[in-house]
Amino acid sequence: MMSLTLQRIPVFTTPLFCRWSSKVFQRHCSRMKMRVSDALASKETGTNVRIQGWVRSVRPQKDNLFLNVNDGSSLQPLQVVAGSHLNTRDLTFGCAVDITGTLEKSPSKKQNVELQAQRIEVVGECNPVDFPFKIKERHSLEYVRQFPHLRCRTNAFSSLLRIRSEASAAIQSFFRDNSYLQIHTPVITSNDCEGAGELFQVKPAGDKNDSDDPNPHFFSVPAYLTVSGQLHLEVMAGAFSAVYTFGPTFRAENSQSRRHLAEFYMVEAEIAFTESLDDLMKDQVDLMLKRKFNIISYTEAIDILKSSSQNFTFSTEWGCDLQTEHEKFLVKHCGNVPVFVINYPYELKPFYARDNQDQPKHTAAAVDLLVPEVGELCGGSLREERLELLSQRLAHAGLKDTYEWYLQLREFGSVPHGGFGMGFERYLLCILGLHNIKDVIPFARFSHSCLL
Amino acid sequence: MMSLTLQRIPVFTTPLFCRWSSKVFQRHCSRMKMRVSDALASKETGTNVRIQGWVRSVRPQKDNLFLNVNDGSSLQPLQVVAGSHLNTRDLTFGCAVDITGTLEKSPSKKQNVELQAQRIEVVGECNPVDFPFKIKERHSLEYVRQFPHLRCRTNAFSSLLRIRSEASAAIQSFFRDNSYLQIHTPVITSNDCEGAGELFQVKPAGDKNDSDDPNPHFFSVPAYLTVSGQLHLEVMAGAFSAVYTFGPTFRAENSQSRRHLAEFYMVEAEIAFTESLDDLMKDQVDLMLKRKFNIISYTEAIDILKSSSQNFTFSTEWGCDLQTEHEKFLVKHCGNVPVFVINYPYELKPFYARDNQDQPKHTAAAVDLLVPEVGELCGGSLREERLELLSQRLAHAGLKDTYEWYLQLREFGSVPHGGFGMGFERYLLCILGLHNIKDVIPFARFSHSCLL
Repeated sequence: MMSLTLQRIPVFTTPLFCRWSSKVFQRHCSRMKMRVSDALASKETGTNVRIQGWVRSVRPQKDNLFLNVNDGSSLQPLQVVAGSHLNTRDLTFGCAVDITGTLEKSPSKKQNVELQAQRIEVVGECNPVDFPFKIKERHSLEYVRQFPHLRCRTNAFSSLLRIRSEASAAIQSFFRDNSYLQIHTPVITSNDCEGAGELFQVKPAGDKNDSDDPNPHFFSVPAYLTVSGQLHLEVMAGAFSAVYTFGPTFRAENSQSRRHLAEFYMVEAEIAFTESLDDLMKDQVDLMLKRKFNIISYTEAIDILKSSSQNFTFSTEWGCDLQTEHEKFLVKHCGNVPVFVINYPYELKPFYARDNQDQPKHTAAAVDLLVPEVGELCGGSLREERLELLSQRLAHAGLKDTYEWYLQLREFGSVPHGGFGMGFERYLLCILGLHNIKDVIPFARFSHSCLL
Repeated sequence: MMSLTLQRIPVFTTPLFCRWSSKVFQRHCSRMKMRVSDALASKETGTNVRIQGWVRSVRPQKDNLFLNVNDGSSLQPLQVVAGSHLNTRDLTFGCAVDITGTLEKSPSKKQNVELQAQRIEVVGECNPVDFPFKIKERHSLEYVRQFPHLRCRTNAFSSLLRIRSEASAAIQSFFRDNSYLQIHTPVITSNDCEGAGELFQVKPAGDKNDSDDPNPHFFSVPAYLTVSGQLHLEVMAGAFSAVYTFGPTFRAENSQSRRHLAEFYMVEAEIAFTESLDDLMKDQVDLMLKRKFNIISYTEAIDILKSSSQNFTFSTEWGCDLQTEHEKFLVKHCGNVPVFVINYPYELKPFYARDNQDQPKHTAAAVDLLVPEVGELCGGSLREERLELLSQRLAHAGLKDTYEWYLQLREFGSVPHGGFGMGFERYLLCILGLHNIKDVIPFARFSHSCLL
């Protein structure tokens, strides 16, 4: 392994080699470098600092020049005050600046401190005519969506991405604090977890998939982009008891809807030694904001829908899947609070859902969480851990050979277990009160759009 | 948005709806549930606890039965002691158990506490003849690799995955503590960052890509799996100053080597207002263990290679890329410590690398970090932020139209910036002293292999 001591090295010429200590890195200028958020929170006035960022406003007055400078560390910019002589023609909205000065208490009530500039350097110009965002103008989310390479420079979208980063860290902390092991489940997979269509296939670029080739696949088998890490998490729950994954998931859905993306993030958890949907729902409640939730059974949901006076497009017969219109109605009916719907018809659910053995109305131990505006936010189930029942169902579906490895998980030390998945972008829509999923992801991918 | 108060809901039958508080969830049994790691660390003896896990050893003696139970929370199992009458035929290596008893101080020096069992339930049996891992046997990493769905149940691989999870959290903390914003860069992309081949293409499964179809692509353009999030991070560095991404990356490399995977994790960072490779190298040093590093230029590296008596397979002329054999030699030559190689020939580097303008030996401000055993661990560069130079180079490569958006980043508030990427699995090999990259990822994908 890597040796811990530095050995003397024969040198060819001087100075061919140099050795580093962190002190070498501490250059004069970086010692005074400060991020805007730190400057804003600073209690010490009179400090010499250097700020680097982008100009968000320029107000030249007779004697003084006022700038707002943002470096992405916070929504609030730092106010910079300078003598008029520091004003230059290229000091425009959107340009990049490097400023040194002293932090002083601000006379204004808008901020605690301001930067009295001694030097302003325009590092990168920005032609205000060509720049798609205009000073003092409030651009709609729809408008800025046209500029995926620039929209992070707007207040609204940069704030959303800061919240996304925070939410993402909070989710990781939640699972870590609760002793879940993080598993990087694979993006490329040879199985189709949901048994559904709408998969993306993966092939080396330029691969003609020549049918004369005896082994036409890069991976020897057809490979797809994952629709869920669940089956891989089940493998891991059989060793670590509680595991989660948080990463990209894919659907080749030909949809332009404001709730769908071809690439989205999903939080998935799998818990061993879990025997009831209650345990699963508890984790979902903990992960969400602490609030009250309702629980209704699928059968009750159908009763509610059938008793309503609303004309639905899709069938509300027992055995039919709940459609968006049904979900919306149920959430509204329950008083616009999140609703868990449990125990779905057995035939509607994939092979892994646990059989409730409650014929004649045969259900599986599956749960969906419906929330206002967004609709389905989480989905989960107990998994069939009984070898005999799972084996029968897979045989019935002609999948026994494909899932031999999955059956083996039940053959060797099987335990009751279950899990759930939550769409991260839908979660963000939910906590932010936004409507379009394209506004809460850095680079949106959906049918007919893969910009950058 | 979601209402904060629970409204009364009209009910159809009782109890159609129930409202939840977290107390409802606290069932009797879960109050005494304890993870093995917590039990092992417990100072309180006489406590009633319930342990759920898998049996790692069974030693029946005349009066007593000794079990080792592991639930994945630690390498060390919990010793369980029970009267012989609790022994059953199905209590075998690998079976799943649910045990209640009292934690007592252990008379043995091997552990602080042991569990005196009052009840042992075999939840899931495990036939020791069919189970591929045998009691008391030490299975090689090569052997367990054949069982991707079961290898997490071995001591070695479960420990590796716990370390992977910790390392992953530590990397996130490092960036968070240093005010980097996490960006989820897309997996599906329409650009090819490295300008190289070996890309995976993405299409909806069953898509025949009929050439008669006027718009044969799901995304309207050909789409690929990302080889790097760099260009997307550059977009974000232009607003947030310091950003990083940590996620899966792909290469359709037809390699069975112990250092390559088709899907691997990469940590990438991009930093605005960075003007020297020193800054980039500093971050890489901070991210790695604190230790001494060497720095040599590419030109010096070539001098070293040419002066050596070793016969290399590949050319060591100035302008040629460094091959694995060269990297190994350089690291060894420097005394088996990590070596940064800086300032590579301009023509060897992609369009985004910053021109050092140092003709006749024309170089770009790029850096690779070579480490013992593993070879290339990190790669980074300053990016060309000067519109004119970048524009010329893209025009020369016939890529100006494709990268119009990238040029615009230089048109509007451009700043000197740079970044680097580190292969996470190679990092793990490096800190763990392991040799095969397939042993440090939960599910390995490489040419001709995509199990599960």
